[in-house]
Amino acid sequence: MAEIHYQRIERLRELMAERGWDAVVVSDSDPHGSEYPAPRWKQVEWLSGFTGEAGEIVITADHAGLWTDSRYFIQAVNELEGSGVVLHRTRVPGAVGIPQWLAEHAGTVAIDGTCFSVQAAEEIEQAVGTLYNVPDMFDMLWPDRPAIPCTPLMTLDEETTGESRLQKLSWLRKFLLKEGCDCMVISSLDEIAWLLNVRGRDIEYNPLVISYLLVTMDDVFWYVLKSPVLPDDPDTVDSLTEIKADGVRICRYDGLADGIESMMALAGEQMRVYFDPAGINYDVARQIRACYGPDNFVCGPSPVILKKAVKNSSEIAGMKEAFHADGVAMEKFLYWIETSLREGRHLTEWEASEKLTALRSVIPGYRGNSFSNISAYGPNAALPHYNTPETGSAGIGPGGLYLVDSGGQYVFGTTDITRTVPVGECSDLEKEDYTLVLKGMIALAMAVFPAGTAGCHLDVLARNPLWQCRRNFGHGTGHGIGFYLCVHEGPQDIRQNFNAQPLLPGMIVSDEPGIYREGQHGIRHENILLCTSAGSNAFGEWLRFETLTLCHIDTSPVIVSLLTGAEREWLNAYNRHVYESLSPDLGPDVAAWLRGKTLPV
Amino acid sequence: MAEIHYQRIERLRELMAERGWDAVVVSDSDPHGSEYPAPRWKQVEWLSGFTGEAGEIVITADHAGLWTDSRYFIQAVNELEGSGVVLHRTRVPGAVGIPQWLAEHAGTVAIDGTCFSVQAAEEIEQAVGTLYNVPDMFDMLWPDRPAIPCTPLMTLDEETTGESRLQKLSWLRKFLLKEGCDCMVISSLDEIAWLLNVRGRDIEYNPLVISYLLVTMDDVFWYVLKSPVLPDDPDTVDSLTEIKADGVRICRYDGLADGIESMMALAGEQMRVYFDPAGINYDVARQIRACYGPDNFVCGPSPVILKKAVKNSSEIAGMKEAFHADGVAMEKFLYWIETSLREGRHLTEWEASEKLTALRSVIPGYRGNSFSNISAYGPNAALPHYNTPETGSAGIGPGGLYLVDSGGQYVFGTTDITRTVPVGECSDLEKEDYTLVLKGMIALAMAVFPAGTAGCHLDVLARNPLWQCRRNFGHGTGHGIGFYLCVHEGPQDIRQNFNAQPLLPGMIVSDEPGIYREGQHGIRHENILLCTSAGSNAFGEWLRFETLTLCHIDTSPVIVSLLTGAEREWLNAYNRHVYESLSPDLGPDVAAWLRGKTLPV
Repeated sequence: MAEIHYQRIERLRELMAERGWDAVVVSDSDPHGSEYPAPRWKQVEWLSGFTGEAGEIVITADHAGLWTDSRYFIQAVNELEGSGVVLHRTRVPGAVGIPQWLAEHAGTVAIDGTCFSVQAAEEIEQAVGTLYNVPDMFDMLWPDRPAIPCTPLMTLDEETTGESRLQKLSWLRKFLLKEGCDCMVISSLDEIAWLLNVRGRDIEYNPLVISYLLVTMDDVFWYVLKSPVLPDDPDTVDSLTEIKADGVRICRYDGLADGIESMMALAGEQMRVYFDPAGINYDVARQIRACYGPDNFVCGPSPVILKKAVKNSSEIAGMKEAFHADGVAMEKFLYWIETSLREGRHLTEWEASEKLTALRSVIPGYRGNSFSNISAYGPNAALPHYNTPETGSAGIGPGGLYLVDSGGQYVFGTTDITRTVPVGECSDLEKEDYTLVLKGMIALAMAVFPAGTAGCHLDVLARNPLWQCRRNFGHGTGHGIGFYLCVHEGPQDIRQNFNAQPLLPGMIVSDEPGIYREGQHGIRHENILLCTSAGSNAFGEWLRFETLTLCHIDTSPVIVSLLTGAEREWLNAYNRHVYESLSPDLGPDVAAWLRGKTLPV
Repeated sequence: MAEIHYQRIERLRELMAERGWDAVVVSDSDPHGSEYPAPRWKQVEWLSGFTGEAGEIVITADHAGLWTDSRYFIQAVNELEGSGVVLHRTRVPGAVGIPQWLAEHAGTVAIDGTCFSVQAAEEIEQAVGTLYNVPDMFDMLWPDRPAIPCTPLMTLDEETTGESRLQKLSWLRKFLLKEGCDCMVISSLDEIAWLLNVRGRDIEYNPLVISYLLVTMDDVFWYVLKSPVLPDDPDTVDSLTEIKADGVRICRYDGLADGIESMMALAGEQMRVYFDPAGINYDVARQIRACYGPDNFVCGPSPVILKKAVKNSSEIAGMKEAFHADGVAMEKFLYWIETSLREGRHLTEWEASEKLTALRSVIPGYRGNSFSNISAYGPNAALPHYNTPETGSAGIGPGGLYLVDSGGQYVFGTTDITRTVPVGECSDLEKEDYTLVLKGMIALAMAVFPAGTAGCHLDVLARNPLWQCRRNFGHGTGHGIGFYLCVHEGPQDIRQNFNAQPLLPGMIVSDEPGIYREGQHGIRHENILLCTSAGSNAFGEWLRFETLTLCHIDTSPVIVSLLTGAEREWLNAYNRHVYESLSPDLGPDVAAWLRGKTLPV
């Protein structure tokens, strides 16, 4: 493979020489800042062979470098061998970032500006003299470059979403009016999907439609069509008809630049456009800035992000349904694991992962997984983002702990759950770690807090039981979750970073502390929490969490003496609640088994 | 009184008319941003009669307004009656700040720039057209204006401070070199006192010397002399001799401007000055900017602030000595309260406060209190900053809770402690609140946390037991404490605000959760904590707290069933430790009493 990448880099260098570019920077983003870019935008992998989820490449006439962080050092060294690409380590003491490196090695730099955030591109621009924006760079280099994904669409009705697209558009227009603006450009795919009550499958795990949106006071332009031929898939045709009937104009995906220009030409200098620089790529930002004077655009956070995060009652009802259905699949899965192993069957991590997907896929409304299953036994679970391989995955058991982190996309909600379960005897350290992580998860689940509290204020609750024993975990405690949208969404989170966004009633966050011991074991317990009101009193407004996840917590590794009375009560009440909620849908064998698993400790 | 203030405001208006100023803004700060300004700088009180600790005044030809926050609304209305000064409420919805108000009411504004921060002055400057800096404004208006305080000096030796002034100056010069600077101007009084190992009594409760400091690579200029006649107090003469012997030039307090100018004239354009805009007043900042081009000064946080906060082993030893001596006084005081009340004596809050001061004042090395004693019984304790009046203070008891928040300045350290004690029967609510606040204090005291953790990450530990019962308190949980310096110092704190400063070994913070029920009772438990290393392991570097305060916690109101096993153990171990540490110094009666008070629960 290395030879191929070497040749590709050489082709790029020929182009650079032709055009007079000293350097090219290649990012691993798509034009919409998506978490999982489609194959078309895996430029870094195509050029270098590196498959890690975070990496950027710089090519000059005599240097080729990959910038990535410690999660991918080993992988990068392996995958880059023979390609001539050198590893530049980021987030280590003395690390030299790309703009800084370029400042010393290049005067003119080219990028595909569609795949760079405004901030990243401007940092490069400031470091070097000249930055060329070349959106068609990879079309020139990559003969069999995959097309822009174009999958069937579906719409969600008002009963499901709680709010029609016309209501949502009217709300957005009120916001724009308040900001003194006439229109807004949106390129974040989950914002577009939420606003139009539309879902697609253009991106793995994320039910999104690759497109741009331009909302004016009178019109909505949806830049979504990837080919001159109109789609003939019946669902898509129906969806487009419905969306059109609401006054949305269906446009070509590549028509945004013309749209911005012609709108400006029509409206003249009075037009003011609103956009979120964090949610738009450099190419689009340049187009807007080229058409509009500095007084004609307003930059600020997209109001859709916060509104989308605060679920309405229909969305909450859907999410609860999703967690119920998902919990049934999870319990059947855990029963299957336990009985298979008891019967002496050899199970691999991959088989288990496939079984879990199969159990989810029979749920009516299932539309795929919300991310790639993590199915990890023993030391593999110590890698928080373990990628279960299809061939050669580890056998599960005997003894120790098996960790499964997974989730489903359903037309009525998105789920995410982690359970760590014993698959035989556990060591004292495994039991202690298991119990401490559980104490952390329970502490956050039980939190009561005044309105205005942000996630970073609460994060320590999930860590304190571990910290007391000088143990910790290196990831955030919680992330927001979309409603049949991305499994990771903002603006709220639960982590140490200073994110000032207060938790609000209707927000959904994960609660997933863990502990990872390299070469030994990994433990993570994850429930999903809904923020709700806890009333008000003389001390002000109060909030608390309601746990949405329905799947028992295995008590057999719990060292009960390490629990406080309140934690023990929580654990017993939770398991009882899971049994009562799910047992009617489990069938007699699984229900009887679950009854045993949920006996109080 | 109102008549006098009315006349003073009219005199100011005459001056304004003469000079052509539309408005004058009067602040309540001194030129050094001190927490407790000396009487000379109580301009707001002199002009309006308002004695609150936070207020600013704006005078125009036809308006006089006081801007203050909700803590002082009632007081302001009372004190301003008849003065013609109108109250402007700050920190309320729709509040209009001074710059915003001025933008609509004035074109030219004058201030005494020595009493404004750079930021505050610049906000006014941006809001209005023209800002005049008139440092002698109040000298013109206020015939019997108090002089600049000038109290005897003392120096601290290297054994006490752990570092000589020459070592500290050499450290500062290394910092300046690293920043590419040649000199630094310092006007924060506690930074100057720390750097020169000097203490004074120019400011109530704070052992400081009103002065400026200019440190160059070869010289140190201390602008401290307030009169052309040299001091004749023997301590001061000795101190100045010692400081001079270390090469520090003793200059006139009003000589800073000339010093900056002549240094610039000598050194020419190569000179670069470092200053902390948050620690310098507008007048000084203007002087620096007038003398130096924009390329000749560097603004940044003063490195002294962090270095001063991280106590060395000599300072830690001194602080421990201070808390021991202070604890002896506190125990004698609490014994005196309890026995006096048992004997049926009538005690007022003021008498108790005086008794406590008397018990502290006999400690060798005592130099005054570190702030004004808060001695508050029953509903008075519900005011977190209750000002115990000399006449008419409340009687203590019978029944309920008495709160005493106090501290001492000793030549070997500064203390701060709050105890809330029962003075007879307590209600169930009092006991519950007492126990919950105690749980919060213990949780923070027991914290173990990774290096890099900031106070705002830990704050919730002290609040969580209260939050669980939907109770809270409206102040921060902890503040830094100086070494025979200010009782409140930065940069670290323990509160909800996002202060990114990590806690470091050697830092000292208070741990003082509370609960306040208007008209009922107030409870606060305050211990002082030293941040220390807790070693390192595979998970990284760990820190924890060591409690410095030595004074028992009354267990009689504690509802033991609300404590976790770990909290109960902490409480018993703490009380045992207090008894063992202090009993040899208490005399037989108090020691026997303390033994009874510290029996395990």
